[in-house]
Amino acid sequence: MLIQHLPLLSKKYIVLASASPRRAELIQGLGLKAAIVPSTFAENLNISSFPCPGDYAVATAKEKALEVSKHLHNGALADLVIGADTVVELDGQVLEKPADAKDAFRMLSSLSGRQHRVYTGVSLVLPKVRDPVSGRQPFVRAFWEETKVEFGKLETQAIDAYIATGEPMDKAGAYGIQGIGGSFVKGVQGCYFNVMGLPVHRISEEVNSLITAGLDLHTDVS
Amino acid sequence: MLIQHLPLLSKKYIVLASASPRRAELIQGLGLKAAIVPSTFAENLNISSFPCPGDYAVATAKEKALEVSKHLHNGALADLVIGADTVVELDGQVLEKPADAKDAFRMLSSLSGRQHRVYTGVSLVLPKVRDPVSGRQPFVRAFWEETKVEFGKLETQAIDAYIATGEPMDKAGAYGIQGIGGSFVKGVQGCYFNVMGLPVHRISEEVNSLITAGLDLHTDVS
Repeated sequence: MLIQHLPLLSKKYIVLASASPRRAELIQGLGLKAAIVPSTFAENLNISSFPCPGDYAVATAKEKALEVSKHLHNGALADLVIGADTVVELDGQVLEKPADAKDAFRMLSSLSGRQHRVYTGVSLVLPKVRDPVSGRQPFVRAFWEETKVEFGKLETQAIDAYIATGEPMDKAGAYGIQGIGGSFVKGVQGCYFNVMGLPVHRISEEVNSLITAGLDLHTDVS
Repeated sequence: MLIQHLPLLSKKYIVLASASPRRAELIQGLGLKAAIVPSTFAENLNISSFPCPGDYAVATAKEKALEVSKHLHNGALADLVIGADTVVELDGQVLEKPADAKDAFRMLSSLSGRQHRVYTGVSLVLPKVRDPVSGRQPFVRAFWEETKVEFGKLETQAIDAYIATGEPMDKAGAYGIQGIGGSFVKGVQGCYFNVMGLPVHRISEEVNSLITAGLDLHTDVS
């Protein structure tokens, strides 16, 4: 786990390359102190060129974190930059953020009474650390997690009332599981936090393994 | 769902018979305004007399809500009283709140790398409504939900660091899924919110069915 390394990590400069308040909350929930530096990456990768939505999410997460990892903070590189991207998939179609209320209605209707999949890709970038294989900086570890989400049957009035709250508009798949949208969710299979935007258990395990492997975020190779 | 009934429900006097801040947060997340009136019920039912931990949780939830449902609020009975009880079960043993740090260590060690089950029993009490079968007040609907929770492997140092945060001490099974304990959870099967203390989807469905069945929380039979 990550919790036993918090005293070490509290001395490091950690950056979350995301504008999502949910992700900031999850990072804070892990006990990590991170600066929020949203990436300006255009998120324009061609999804059809990836074998699965998880790979697409990872590639986007990498671009976000790599872009932010080049920034200097108080004149120095960060110790760890975390990038993430979340996509919702149903019947082989990826649901992005809805364009408008009509689009949100279409998405929520399609999710009603069915199971869909949520993929979050994560990229952990260590700007000061050299990759032991390529010899190049930065060191990058990237992965994705999948969670199955089952919706209950949504009445038309429920969808309309939900859209009226405004909650769906800035969220992939047109719902937020941590908000009132959570009442639509009959159950999940997998990491709940992955649906919110970060697979916290997996991140905890991966950061732990980086530290115990000696890539301890201490090493300054600059 | 419940969301389309929020305008109706906003005019009702709803009481949450629980001191848990997590439950208050979930009720609020559903869009419900509820007064918090913790029950003084001693929670002393004999768990071994119940066929399964879910039935025990429901019976405790009922006692809590029934006790609070007798209170008057501004001289009148409430429209809806919600009681709940959550228990954690592993290998046929129910894990309550830990007695001390040593007990918390024992519980967390036993959960490490394994799957356990969390049961939340819920009782919806309508103090002003007559049961259509028995003809007696109040009307009660009670149910429980089960969620399977899988923990990752916890190192001794992780358990020690977690206990040092104080988070485990007031929680059944010695962890809080919405806190840093969430990073221990590899995945869940079922309702995540049930682990936090209330199965919000099921509650949403049950309140909806009470309203559509005509037990619309309108009826004043006093």
